[in-house]
Amino acid sequence: MRNLETAVEFYEATFGLSVAGRETNETQGVTEAMLYVADAPGGASYVQLLEPLAADTPVGRFLETRGEGVHHIGYGVADVAAALEQLRSDGIRLVDEQPRHGSLGASIAFLHPKSIGGVLTELVQSANG
Amino acid sequence: MRNLETAVEFYEATFGLSVAGRETNETQGVTEAMLYVADAPGGASYVQLLEPLAADTPVGRFLETRGEGVHHIGYGVADVAAALEQLRSDGIRLVDEQPRHGSLGASIAFLHPKSIGGVLTELVQSANG
Repeated sequence: MRNLETAVEFYEATFGLSVAGRETNETQGVTEAMLYVADAPGGASYVQLLEPLAADTPVGRFLETRGEGVHHIGYGVADVAAALEQLRSDGIRLVDEQPRHGSLGASIAFLHPKSIGGVLTELVQSANG
Repeated sequence: MRNLETAVEFYEATFGLSVAGRETNETQGVTEAMLYVADAPGGASYVQLLEPLAADTPVGRFLETRGEGVHHIGYGVADVAAALEQLRSDGIRLVDEQPRHGSLGASIAFLHPKSIGGVLTELVQSANG
């Protein structure tokens, strides 16, 4: 999103979602809000709204190239390191060779969209599960 | 997706998802598979893989313009007609003025991406809830 606050207000007013957490991650170059959607056995689902901290960041370049839209899709996994190892052995192209810190204390890793029909895909091991 | 069967095989083998239903919708110009992800209070969540029946269809044009990727995001709602009426009164631009038939017997309606930060958004009232 070009403006996080506008997007948050829109999602709250229009879809009745609530902010579960806000974070700014200088390393990834984003400021974000996680909007809670629903609980599920594999971990809760969220809409993650992202605003780049600068044009020269991954999300900044995405906005410049493609405009606002869906940046990635994340799936809950029980063990992100094990899942990453399995996917690597399956020949899936990885963005992250090792898990790193994600939103809400999760451990995450991204898979390359080239391997997955153009969909930037994230594995998310939530902090409490 | 350019090839539904290849995509289904990939999602089954790589992410361990299973096909919950297949449909071809001539009106919408797509053939599709719904892959079950998880149950949730508002209705189960799925990955919907779509292949256009022809180039001159909405999904065919999407592939031509943007390539493979995320086409839309769907949210479960209790009453799609009521939600649509609320969104219309909120000034949200609608693709569907009235609910229509969707996958797995659901009643659905699309909202215009221009109103929602570039995200083509679908409301889904599942058949059994």
